[in-house]
Amino acid sequence: MEFTLKISLKLKAVALFATVTLPILSQAQFAKSEDAIKYRKAALTVMSTHFGRIGAVVKGAPYNKDAVASDANIVAMLSTLPWQGFGPGHEGGNALPEVWSNADKFKSNADKLQETTAALKVAANSGDLEAIKKAFGATGQACKGCHDDFRKK
Amino acid sequence: MEFTLKISLKLKAVALFATVTLPILSQAQFAKSEDAIKYRKAALTVMSTHFGRIGAVVKGAPYNKDAVASDANIVAMLSTLPWQGFGPGHEGGNALPEVWSNADKFKSNADKLQETTAALKVAANSGDLEAIKKAFGATGQACKGCHDDFRKK
Repeated sequence: MEFTLKISLKLKAVALFATVTLPILSQAQFAKSEDAIKYRKAALTVMSTHFGRIGAVVKGAPYNKDAVASDANIVAMLSTLPWQGFGPGHEGGNALPEVWSNADKFKSNADKLQETTAALKVAANSGDLEAIKKAFGATGQACKGCHDDFRKK
Repeated sequence: MEFTLKISLKLKAVALFATVTLPILSQAQFAKSEDAIKYRKAALTVMSTHFGRIGAVVKGAPYNKDAVASDANIVAMLSTLPWQGFGPGHEGGNALPEVWSNADKFKSNADKLQETTAALKVAANSGDLEAIKKAFGATGQACKGCHDDFRKK
């Protein structure tokens, strides 16, 4: 009876381990937290630089279709990257503990950002400045939503 | 006569300005050197992280075609970015003054890196591990060539 119970508990532990850690392990490619933090900051820096350039156009700087499309392509690609730097055990930097304690919401925000940057890329490549402005606003809201809840002030 | 000379000089000055500064102006999108330095470091950090993952496979870690192709796509895209952070007046960080005093050679090295990462991307998407190893080596040489001559030790 005790043996059966132990087996059962072990199986449950294995199942839990597999469920909780496998999706994370596939992303947690950093041996050291300082490397994970450096990586996610770097990806966000490159992304925000190019997003800012689109923002300048939205705010009235001269519109160059190719430049904005290039910036939007970079933003869309970069928006897929930072999340792998937020693996388990890599707390720190500007990230609030809620990134890990409220991981579902963080993941949902990360997905939202990638959806909005994909739409921004489509708008930018279409050359429709009004569509770009709208998609830029939605992307900015996605940035802000995550910063409000998951980033140190 | 004097009028003609002045016009001629002015035209020459305009021509010189256009030749020398236009290609640079198109890249110099940073108002502050600290932003340019932060940007180029960030782009190089993201690039080297994904290049390092391919390096692990080259050195014997399990080969996953999709993962290596994804890393190589990121490396190829990121390799086009850092150079805009080395605009005129943005000396500093880990960059040696030779980046600016020997700009032709620096540009040639930057072009070489982009050529080798483009080839690495092709190899990675083909799924030919031997071709990946070869292209990885060539890219590594391009990294090293630039670091040897243009980066603080």
